[in-house]
Amino acid sequence: MVDLALLRSLAQPAQSKLVLLVLDGLGGLPREAGGPTELEAARTPHLDDLAAEGQAGLSQPIGLGITPGSGPGHLALFGYDPVSSNIGRGALSALGLGLRLDAGDLGVRLNFCTLDDQGIVVDRRAGRIETSVNRKLVAKLNEIEVAGIELEFATESQHRAVLIIRGAYLSPAVRETDPQAVGVPPLEPVPLTATAQHTSEVLRLVTEAVRDCIGSEAPANFVLMRGYAGLPELEDLHSLYGLQPMCLATYPMYKGLARVAGMAVLDGLESVDEQIAGLAATWDDYDYFFVHHKAPDARGEDGDFDAKAAAIEEMDRRLPALLELGPDVLVVTGDHSTPSQLHQHSWHPVPCLFWGENVLPDSVRTFGERSCGQGSLGVFPAQSIMALMLGHGGRLQKFGA
Amino acid sequence: MVDLALLRSLAQPAQSKLVLLVLDGLGGLPREAGGPTELEAARTPHLDDLAAEGQAGLSQPIGLGITPGSGPGHLALFGYDPVSSNIGRGALSALGLGLRLDAGDLGVRLNFCTLDDQGIVVDRRAGRIETSVNRKLVAKLNEIEVAGIELEFATESQHRAVLIIRGAYLSPAVRETDPQAVGVPPLEPVPLTATAQHTSEVLRLVTEAVRDCIGSEAPANFVLMRGYAGLPELEDLHSLYGLQPMCLATYPMYKGLARVAGMAVLDGLESVDEQIAGLAATWDDYDYFFVHHKAPDARGEDGDFDAKAAAIEEMDRRLPALLELGPDVLVVTGDHSTPSQLHQHSWHPVPCLFWGENVLPDSVRTFGERSCGQGSLGVFPAQSIMALMLGHGGRLQKFGA
Repeated sequence: MVDLALLRSLAQPAQSKLVLLVLDGLGGLPREAGGPTELEAARTPHLDDLAAEGQAGLSQPIGLGITPGSGPGHLALFGYDPVSSNIGRGALSALGLGLRLDAGDLGVRLNFCTLDDQGIVVDRRAGRIETSVNRKLVAKLNEIEVAGIELEFATESQHRAVLIIRGAYLSPAVRETDPQAVGVPPLEPVPLTATAQHTSEVLRLVTEAVRDCIGSEAPANFVLMRGYAGLPELEDLHSLYGLQPMCLATYPMYKGLARVAGMAVLDGLESVDEQIAGLAATWDDYDYFFVHHKAPDARGEDGDFDAKAAAIEEMDRRLPALLELGPDVLVVTGDHSTPSQLHQHSWHPVPCLFWGENVLPDSVRTFGERSCGQGSLGVFPAQSIMALMLGHGGRLQKFGA
Repeated sequence: MVDLALLRSLAQPAQSKLVLLVLDGLGGLPREAGGPTELEAARTPHLDDLAAEGQAGLSQPIGLGITPGSGPGHLALFGYDPVSSNIGRGALSALGLGLRLDAGDLGVRLNFCTLDDQGIVVDRRAGRIETSVNRKLVAKLNEIEVAGIELEFATESQHRAVLIIRGAYLSPAVRETDPQAVGVPPLEPVPLTATAQHTSEVLRLVTEAVRDCIGSEAPANFVLMRGYAGLPELEDLHSLYGLQPMCLATYPMYKGLARVAGMAVLDGLESVDEQIAGLAATWDDYDYFFVHHKAPDARGEDGDFDAKAAAIEEMDRRLPALLELGPDVLVVTGDHSTPSQLHQHSWHPVPCLFWGENVLPDSVRTFGERSCGQGSLGVFPAQSIMALMLGHGGRLQKFGA
């Protein structure tokens, strides 16, 4: 466990430039026993050079055996305790859609569903309506007015949508209304704690208004609510360490996670080349850069070993341009593993390399799961990456005399 | 985090002899990319033999990225939590001068300064007076009597001195009087907590007495106070584990740190040879020996790569004499790294080896940063070294049945 209060007390200003390059879902598994992983199979001459010059290890995002979601995976990389800072479903869905989410806002995941005449749930997914139908329904719902409360409905896809209740400081401690079964009515949003009484009443009013608004739009004539969540209260990276952090990501979810940590976000980036150009364009005005490469995770979830290796190579080719900027500390790792054999996130530790002038070299010569497993960083908590970046960047005072 | 209460509950007597050999500032960095570190460059046949026969790893004094001072670096090696047991500046300065410091004493760092006729600070360092002038002023100050309080002033060097207020159980929660600027008067030692009212009054009386005593001694006509600190309340190594610990160090600071842990101290040692002779002379009467070799840190702070390597070799040559005594467990490590490239303490983990009859051997063949990075101890907290020494020495009972 990293002692944030200790780190905070030691933070000091410096001119150093720190770069965290996240290859999402980087870690993998061999396609066949004894064969290479995706990263080991990829041709990565520049990453190999960095590993040979720097220090390597395996980063453990949450804990041994635990598979991270994208939220905790990234918050750990930003130096937060991934367990206590966990972002609930509703809030994460809102971030994933690129919606603004502030302290005091509550995010709720919605399923359009089908009720029969007696108000019984007969389809929890409203026949998986087309996304275009979802959009039309959301436009109608956004005309709802519930006394004094700002509501924002947003389409996710098919039957899935998100509701943000803004600025009302509602409690997430309310029962979800999805009964997780058909043949029964939706559940009431009863309060689960004494302080959630007000939230319960607001949600009742919202569901009544929804019924009035789309009650005749079968099959999608109601919504089921779950995943109530606001943002965790995190101290931002500037306040903690005096950093001026910048996010260079293409997907809304990762920009949203960066904003939760107080990063500035360069919007409008749509390719790796634009990300590297954006890094160069913002280089002089910031000192901590989070560069997020989505493709390895996406190809891993597709189960496409070769495409995942190619996605890793795609970033390797950009490394000379990144290094030309002259980072003092560069970390390359992933937020979690996504082995293409598993088609999903996994619990495996993630290859990680530190590179920079004052990094202690080890005997690792290439960047891969097996080689990093012999690195002198050992298997270490992802949450420590921030402390190590700060240390290597001259941004932590000596502790004690 | 080591569970001291658990270790304490498992401690059992044994006849084993444990030696902790600290090469201060041992860890280093390559002088040029791809080259060896100071330790790797040093010719250390005996340390290499120990590494080949024993188990190696990298010791992490405080936490990843954090640079340790000498106080926390050593207290971690003695098995204490280096953060909660941190020794404040004033107390550490007193230990560094070899002054006695007991529970209830308060150490204060002093700067002689120059006040003008209006009592405004015009030089915070009194023109960096000669140390000989400092000594004369300290002799005068030691004649001060402040009702019922025992004061001890001591010269550090130039304008720097230390004050110990003995046995009064004063609070460190008082404002420092150094304004950190010229053109303003010294600050008042106002209490920072309700319980520091008495301390504040005592310090006011002391500063008044100082003004009366040396007010006409310009340029050094007053003192500024900072770094108020007593000793942390630590249970000593005998009480914790039944050890009879002995310190063999040449510098006052390390003898002072050893006393904080309850060690006996053999005074008068001035060379490595005298330390080894002292070890032999005390061998039969003690069972835990802390041998402190200062030179690698000093040469690292000088920025002298070759001299640091030579300082390491200097101790390597004494190892046969040490081994002849027949230690059951020998640990060789540092309290922190001091790379000569950086001229100062650093955050890098420290090479560490365990040697003894029951130590689990690994595949490390030499003693160095890269080789220890492949050792089977991995990267592990320095605070665990004590538990491992006790375990290897047969000094911990089985836990559970």
